[in-house]
Amino acid sequence: MERIEQHACHGGRQEVWKHASDTLACDMRVGVYLPPQAERAACPVLYWLSGLTCTEQNFITKAGAQRYAAEHGVIVVAPDTSPRGDGVPDAEGYDIGLGAGFYVNATQAPWSTHYRMYDYVTQELPSLIETFFPTTQARAISGHSMGGHGALVAALRNPGRYRSVSAFAPIVAPTQVPWGHKAFAQYLGDDHETWKAWDAVELVRDAAERLPLLIDQGEADDFLATQLRPELLRRACSDAGHPLHLRMRAGYDHSYYFIASFIGEHIAHHATALRG
Amino acid sequence: MERIEQHACHGGRQEVWKHASDTLACDMRVGVYLPPQAERAACPVLYWLSGLTCTEQNFITKAGAQRYAAEHGVIVVAPDTSPRGDGVPDAEGYDIGLGAGFYVNATQAPWSTHYRMYDYVTQELPSLIETFFPTTQARAISGHSMGGHGALVAALRNPGRYRSVSAFAPIVAPTQVPWGHKAFAQYLGDDHETWKAWDAVELVRDAAERLPLLIDQGEADDFLATQLRPELLRRACSDAGHPLHLRMRAGYDHSYYFIASFIGEHIAHHATALRG
Repeated sequence: MERIEQHACHGGRQEVWKHASDTLACDMRVGVYLPPQAERAACPVLYWLSGLTCTEQNFITKAGAQRYAAEHGVIVVAPDTSPRGDGVPDAEGYDIGLGAGFYVNATQAPWSTHYRMYDYVTQELPSLIETFFPTTQARAISGHSMGGHGALVAALRNPGRYRSVSAFAPIVAPTQVPWGHKAFAQYLGDDHETWKAWDAVELVRDAAERLPLLIDQGEADDFLATQLRPELLRRACSDAGHPLHLRMRAGYDHSYYFIASFIGEHIAHHATALRG
Repeated sequence: MERIEQHACHGGRQEVWKHASDTLACDMRVGVYLPPQAERAACPVLYWLSGLTCTEQNFITKAGAQRYAAEHGVIVVAPDTSPRGDGVPDAEGYDIGLGAGFYVNATQAPWSTHYRMYDYVTQELPSLIETFFPTTQARAISGHSMGGHGALVAALRNPGRYRSVSAFAPIVAPTQVPWGHKAFAQYLGDDHETWKAWDAVELVRDAAERLPLLIDQGEADDFLATQLRPELLRRACSDAGHPLHLRMRAGYDHSYYFIASFIGEHIAHHATALRG
């Protein structure tokens, strides 16, 4: 791993690292915030998955999470949202290809060689982080929009792996909305049965672990009715008896101003679980 | 004034407005954060002046100031850093022309028609803000780098106009450093005597008001020794008996990670003065 940025921030350090990913067959960048507590002791890790069009930069420059991570002694790891570089396929549109990995393992050409973001964020990246940084084994995961989908799927598919999960304005049912239809058709192919393994609303039906889902959703979010549809998750959780804490936030949109407004509450939630 | 962005943020609203500026003879954009208190009552205003290359976006997306502005009930106004648009002259380099107005009134062609950022930020903009928003008459001013210079100069040249002033990594002595030499030669011409009216180190010598200067400066700032030189201000304030609170911050650089780390302390400082 090669450190390409380092900035003092809220008593700790915001860093950006570059490394060769075996899973994705390309170089990847990842933001790592080390709180001041990490100078002296191992700290738990919150993984943050960003949304469509983002790189590793958006969250670390705009969310203001470092203040809260420093307060609670949590390392925050924010990877890029897709493989990148020479030979990595792309396509027309911001919602497919580069910046739009959707945190699945693609099975279809030309995507399947590089677009394996699920394995990357749940396996390879944690292994690297836990090798190179002073971490405990306690992990939490969160994300925004496409990354909220990624966080929910990662937690629901991996019982015991995360102490807590949360999301901002997640795509809860990609199999039922246009963003998901487009991406899954490309990455996973025409057999819609295979899509269900990557859909939080489907996964809560048989979740082996009743990890509570903490979700904030802005009511003024332009994507609310078409792409996000939190009512589908509410119903599925109700049917399955899966604990859901869904907070509808009047006036808030899909932007980082929304995330910045509530990231403190999310980090406090994760910190409590990570200490437990 | 035309509102071009509006986002709920920390219980208030982060807005961006566009307006025709008479002073600058062009359209200008300005960020305005309205804290929740502004729904019910007039609030004091903190003006923020950004640094080289910035637009009205950098501070509002990266500093995380809204949380503290909401806590203290302060409106935060963050204008662009230069005139822009058709017919506004530019030149080679990030440190002259667009994004580099240096908060002076240019006297030299081709700059003098549009580059009057001093009059804009100290006169026209406050008049607009105080007409269109629920403000009290209490004003404070702060800024970063070139904008720290602008804030110090605005306060020192206008006794009684600001309740408080602060800066992050300001250019304290533009007449003695390369950034200032280049900009002032272009904007103000060859008579170096005229430069002194735009230099905080010169202005503290005869300041009519002993408004305390609060300054944070990172010790790992790449521009510290060449462009910023806070020791020059320390000496001038000491000689003049002008109150200076200069805090050298070990490990911090020139980035918004530095600003985000200490903007809360600055806003608390201004809020105390603005309530007084």
